[in-house]
Amino acid sequence: MDIGIIGSSTVAQTLATKLLELGHSVMISSRDTSLAKDRGDRGTLPSAADFAAGQRELGRRAAAGSFAQAAAHGEIVVNATAGGHSLEALEAAGAENLAGKILVDVANALDFSRGMPPTLLYCNTDSLAERIQAAFPAARVVKALNTATATVMVDPSQFGEATTMFVAGNDQAARDWVRSELLEGWFGWRQVLDLGDLTAARGLEMWLPLWLRLMGATGTAAFNLRIVTAG
Amino acid sequence: MDIGIIGSSTVAQTLATKLLELGHSVMISSRDTSLAKDRGDRGTLPSAADFAAGQRELGRRAAAGSFAQAAAHGEIVVNATAGGHSLEALEAAGAENLAGKILVDVANALDFSRGMPPTLLYCNTDSLAERIQAAFPAARVVKALNTATATVMVDPSQFGEATTMFVAGNDQAARDWVRSELLEGWFGWRQVLDLGDLTAARGLEMWLPLWLRLMGATGTAAFNLRIVTAG
Repeated sequence: MDIGIIGSSTVAQTLATKLLELGHSVMISSRDTSLAKDRGDRGTLPSAADFAAGQRELGRRAAAGSFAQAAAHGEIVVNATAGGHSLEALEAAGAENLAGKILVDVANALDFSRGMPPTLLYCNTDSLAERIQAAFPAARVVKALNTATATVMVDPSQFGEATTMFVAGNDQAARDWVRSELLEGWFGWRQVLDLGDLTAARGLEMWLPLWLRLMGATGTAAFNLRIVTAG
Repeated sequence: MDIGIIGSSTVAQTLATKLLELGHSVMISSRDTSLAKDRGDRGTLPSAADFAAGQRELGRRAAAGSFAQAAAHGEIVVNATAGGHSLEALEAAGAENLAGKILVDVANALDFSRGMPPTLLYCNTDSLAERIQAAFPAARVVKALNTATATVMVDPSQFGEATTMFVAGNDQAARDWVRSELLEGWFGWRQVLDLGDLTAARGLEMWLPLWLRLMGATGTAAFNLRIVTAG
């Protein structure tokens, strides 16, 4: 399948790598594809162009382009930008390139302007996913994968037991596709809960403040939650 | 031990029943101890006085009193009121009756005034637990148990596998006591994560919107999360 990824972050490159391994044609994107990202004490992330060139050397169908090119490339589109910049990046991607397509929103809108720990830009009565859906009414927005770190998103088998992933969105067929194809089929998730319409994205995004404290308590970002019911 | 419970809700009566079974002396409390609570289509909850009388008939050390009497009774105090009324109820309990004591805050401040689903009264940069700590600086507030329904709080063994509970608070000794005695020792929790200071209560309280959607998706309130790490 042709997949467009809005963004060239760690999350974008991790998702792209997995999708490329599965044989899909993937374009990642950024404002300037030649620009590597400084990730502070975690070093430097390859530029979108360097990432795509490296993947092509492995025989994979990778490309790097503008936000609009990636959105146009994709039969489905993934928003993997930093949440505080998502609306702006999607505006550059173009409503016409998103119309009718499933738009998987994996972003979290963290606000670092008030210091650490970050807070949320949208909360309680609103969410990033709902803002995106309102700004792009013809896109079929599905919130998913934002509740885990990138290496967990694409490799849920690392835990040795099934852990839980979620989908939420206003379009049932879009939710079903993300659950059964992208999450269960391609990435191997074994417990995906359908939380209903996109207002559920509020709860999924409000998981982040707890997630950050759990990273502190467990000493790793490679964790996930498993929902357990009695009986 | 002598335990004071602020409130006479389902949560208060469920916690009290478990603590009484364990042999403790427990006083639950309400504005009017003779008043039964209408729980809509779930029927009527016994009044605080009737609950205590029923427990005494079983030979247990139960009492019902005012918020102030319950707080004075307790060597430790539990806030089991509806979160929107907690500050008012604790004001009635009296700062002098809370000073120096561990105050376990199990409440969630849900706002039903905007219709269903409820939203949170405090969120993102604030939490009910922090409000309580600020209003009662001599109390040793520990947030715990608010992430699960009452029957799960006191019976984590119902899942057949360890699920996760949390503590947060500014007083390390108080957090340690709640973790090792109340949660692990008395209630049988086997995976309790210490999330550090009381700002972690934000994440614990922001779990509620997701919890409510999970109740819808799983069809039960008798569920919990388990935190799973790799390797």
